[in-house]
Amino acid sequence: MNDNLPDTASSKKKVLVLGGGFGGVFAAKALEKLGRGKLDVELINSNNYFVFQPLLPEVAASSIHSADAVVPLRQLLRRIQVRQAEVMNIDFDKRKVIVVQGTRRIPVDLPYDELVIAFGTGVDLNRFPGLPEHALTMKNLADAHRLRTHVIGCLETADVTDEPEIKQQLLTFVVVGAGFSGVETVAEMRELVRRALKYYPNIKPDEIRFHLIEYADRILPTFSPDLAEYATRRLEIHGIEVLTRVGTKSATGTGVELTDGRFIPTSTIVATIGNGPHRLVETLGLDMHWGRIKTDQFMRVPGKDGVWALGDAALIPMIDEPKEDPLHYAPQTAQFAVREGRQLAANIVAKLNGNEMKPFAYVSKGSLASLGMSKAVADVYGVKLSGTFAWLLWRGFYLSFLPGFQAKLRVGINWLVNSVMPPNIVQIQSTPPATRYIHYRKGDKVFEPGMLIDGFYTVTKGRFKLTIDNPDAGEHFEKVFSPGEHFGERVLLRSALRTGLVVALEDGVLLFIAQKDFTRFARAFPFLDNYFKGYIERTFGGFDKSFAPGSTDSKTELETLP
Amino acid sequence: MNDNLPDTASSKKKVLVLGGGFGGVFAAKALEKLGRGKLDVELINSNNYFVFQPLLPEVAASSIHSADAVVPLRQLLRRIQVRQAEVMNIDFDKRKVIVVQGTRRIPVDLPYDELVIAFGTGVDLNRFPGLPEHALTMKNLADAHRLRTHVIGCLETADVTDEPEIKQQLLTFVVVGAGFSGVETVAEMRELVRRALKYYPNIKPDEIRFHLIEYADRILPTFSPDLAEYATRRLEIHGIEVLTRVGTKSATGTGVELTDGRFIPTSTIVATIGNGPHRLVETLGLDMHWGRIKTDQFMRVPGKDGVWALGDAALIPMIDEPKEDPLHYAPQTAQFAVREGRQLAANIVAKLNGNEMKPFAYVSKGSLASLGMSKAVADVYGVKLSGTFAWLLWRGFYLSFLPGFQAKLRVGINWLVNSVMPPNIVQIQSTPPATRYIHYRKGDKVFEPGMLIDGFYTVTKGRFKLTIDNPDAGEHFEKVFSPGEHFGERVLLRSALRTGLVVALEDGVLLFIAQKDFTRFARAFPFLDNYFKGYIERTFGGFDKSFAPGSTDSKTELETLP
Repeated sequence: MNDNLPDTASSKKKVLVLGGGFGGVFAAKALEKLGRGKLDVELINSNNYFVFQPLLPEVAASSIHSADAVVPLRQLLRRIQVRQAEVMNIDFDKRKVIVVQGTRRIPVDLPYDELVIAFGTGVDLNRFPGLPEHALTMKNLADAHRLRTHVIGCLETADVTDEPEIKQQLLTFVVVGAGFSGVETVAEMRELVRRALKYYPNIKPDEIRFHLIEYADRILPTFSPDLAEYATRRLEIHGIEVLTRVGTKSATGTGVELTDGRFIPTSTIVATIGNGPHRLVETLGLDMHWGRIKTDQFMRVPGKDGVWALGDAALIPMIDEPKEDPLHYAPQTAQFAVREGRQLAANIVAKLNGNEMKPFAYVSKGSLASLGMSKAVADVYGVKLSGTFAWLLWRGFYLSFLPGFQAKLRVGINWLVNSVMPPNIVQIQSTPPATRYIHYRKGDKVFEPGMLIDGFYTVTKGRFKLTIDNPDAGEHFEKVFSPGEHFGERVLLRSALRTGLVVALEDGVLLFIAQKDFTRFARAFPFLDNYFKGYIERTFGGFDKSFAPGSTDSKTELETLP
Repeated sequence: MNDNLPDTASSKKKVLVLGGGFGGVFAAKALEKLGRGKLDVELINSNNYFVFQPLLPEVAASSIHSADAVVPLRQLLRRIQVRQAEVMNIDFDKRKVIVVQGTRRIPVDLPYDELVIAFGTGVDLNRFPGLPEHALTMKNLADAHRLRTHVIGCLETADVTDEPEIKQQLLTFVVVGAGFSGVETVAEMRELVRRALKYYPNIKPDEIRFHLIEYADRILPTFSPDLAEYATRRLEIHGIEVLTRVGTKSATGTGVELTDGRFIPTSTIVATIGNGPHRLVETLGLDMHWGRIKTDQFMRVPGKDGVWALGDAALIPMIDEPKEDPLHYAPQTAQFAVREGRQLAANIVAKLNGNEMKPFAYVSKGSLASLGMSKAVADVYGVKLSGTFAWLLWRGFYLSFLPGFQAKLRVGINWLVNSVMPPNIVQIQSTPPATRYIHYRKGDKVFEPGMLIDGFYTVTKGRFKLTIDNPDAGEHFEKVFSPGEHFGERVLLRSALRTGLVVALEDGVLLFIAQKDFTRFARAFPFLDNYFKGYIERTFGGFDKSFAPGSTDSKTELETLP
């Protein structure tokens, strides 16, 4: 491992802040200000920008440009060294953080005197089979962008398809979880679809379905019941079906199964549930509870000298002897993270100066949630508001909260421009991942004759049955595939269309490998090539059958050699 | 294959337009207008938007949002059916086009009476080893976006690295080809870097290098020599090194080799050369010349009834008896494509009405090229202009040319906002492809001890030598790998860092497979798993050696099962 640049100001204490969300950014800003001349502050984040999370649903809805929901960290933190890097590990004993920068693959050691962990949370959907693979999430900018692209893609295909079942599936949108993020996301998605519809002449408004699924007995649990009731009515007026007291059981590429047994056919599942610990935080060996790092009231991590934690990643007690009650700890909101950041910075400076630190204390100023269509609900200093005025308050509040004048101006201009403009339905497509796990329910078709060949399948769970019928040649072939077995070898040939039907005999999972990547690998690796030749001989009885995938020799024609 | 929706207005003639560039869009617009009530016009494009190609360098430079260089086709063509689909094939005998829509894998047949082929061109860099894999291109919106993200990523890493060679490579930018696209791209990239530099305190302006490489004896071949000379001087004043009379020989991940033997270490190669036929056009069996579809002066494709071609994909004679001279044919510019579209539409309507068609005729109004820093060169109606006035003309011209009021307003606002704002350096990262070919020059390191493990390598060309040294255990291991052989199996284990050094013994190519995808595949496929166990035993003499990649059993711990 390389050492970092030598410290030219070695008398200064080095403070590393890990994470560029609300907590990390406000801590770094305050550290720089309070400790100027004494502290050397560096913030490390895997992206070079700060994400203004509350605006992500607006990005997903095309109301603002994706670049306007974020601010470059270097612009926000002018006097602080910003390092775009992935944190690999933390060595608490040697007081150093190990990072990997950009595409360079040599880890770099960064020593620290004080360390602030502000990683936020991750998403863990593993309790719901199929949800990690088939649901979209709303945690970062890429997610919001992906959702927007996906929704527009659904409209594009729905407008031209002649298959009614596919059309219904494409025009049904499901959002799981009805906290802030879920409610704002479903409201914004609905607004995007409504506004875009004039460009899709073959889609009728009554063909569109929105579902909001919530396990609790009502939506927006942090609001009072009457505001939640108002929000529910608004959503329902806009045609969004609000389902409470029902959970998500599992998901596939064609729908979502609820805990009440209902199956909703859909191409779009957005999961706003499943907040879990950040991937790295889990592995640090720190004392955790509810997936968060336990700290004292000063936000110090007990037992680790010079280590602090804040924000969603931290469990910060708000009273002297906290019990097993979430209300005894700081809630995971941006409002709290900002104040935690400031207090933590003050505590670090107090510690280094030998002054007294202060325990974290703050009372929430209230909550706001947008419902789309220029309506919102708000609870500010205990005053409950709803409707258009609340919505204007929501916009004004976020505009004022958005860090940086440039970002305010950009978002403000965009809001103005968009209020008089048709929605931007440009769909910037991206390549799907080369390998992915696909979940199937019993009876689902994997593919059928006449379908384009797109990849190679290996069974990782369940059983799948292949049937090939060729009445012209009087040939018939059947085979059941179990975990470790595979099908779709035809991908190695020049043939373009499937000849067989594959159906799931029970609930199962396949590993899909895209044609291009699989073919490249098989071609470069003679051992695999030979295996497939032997396999085809054994399984299909040779290359002369019309249904046999044939000789793999022809595969070299598929792609020009580099 | 499914048939499409039944034609409810069967008396109307169905016109399919393939391609949504300048030619296709203007043909479709004119067809709808001239043939209203008689024609049923449908435009098919793989993206749902029109790309305003001349603005792509501005997108790459963050001067405008990526969504502002494009216009949704449905917004541009309100009375025309737009279909976002991939054209698989054309059956000229049965007069139908076969398409695949969105993620649906069942091909759809679309019958036509008249067919307009407006596919534009593709990029073919295969003459230059390594360029297809290692160069960025500037053909579409994704390219522009990728280039911007890439340049900002280079600055991010250069700001924090302590390796001088890597820093130099990251801060050297090479653009190959000095036509419009190359000149505007290098000028805009340079402006982005210059404006962004204030956020990167560890990068000094004199560490930045820009190279513009042109095989011909001067840049901007379509301009007069004196304008080209002016442009060259402007670029050089801005620190861009203009190299003419030199070609590109090959490229790797760490640099580009020129035909004069010079090797420029760089992480950024932009290729604006290599226009070739569109992938599908090549396979249609049409009469081609210079990679373009031969048409008559009316833009009909000879021998194919009802088939027309225009734009960059077509070779349209401008005189009665054209010779082997490019000047006898319509040039491949947006200006000509727009006029071709209008004339072609008039000819189709004339043909159907039994009227006389007109041969295509048009005289260019001139050319404009932006040089960045508020300077441009222009040749309008034979009047030559350069400098700031030409640049204002350039902006005004493109603003007027941009189809749609909304797009004009958006781009105009953005230009204004950006002129007073710092550049947007938000880097929205995307996942690199799972499999890719990587070119190496003799002596290049593939990886070295201490590097992070990122994937598995198979040799497709050349020879590579692995050396593992473990002085503590007194172990030493060497092996040379030839095509079909592989290394990097350690990817299957939990270990994080390389222990060996791999060097290219001669120029060669490796197929790289990313860790995540390779591990998933090996896990799902017991046959491959067993192979690697045997291979490690045979090659390294068992699992007990410190350098052996070890047992593959531990790989199941790598990823949670779906």
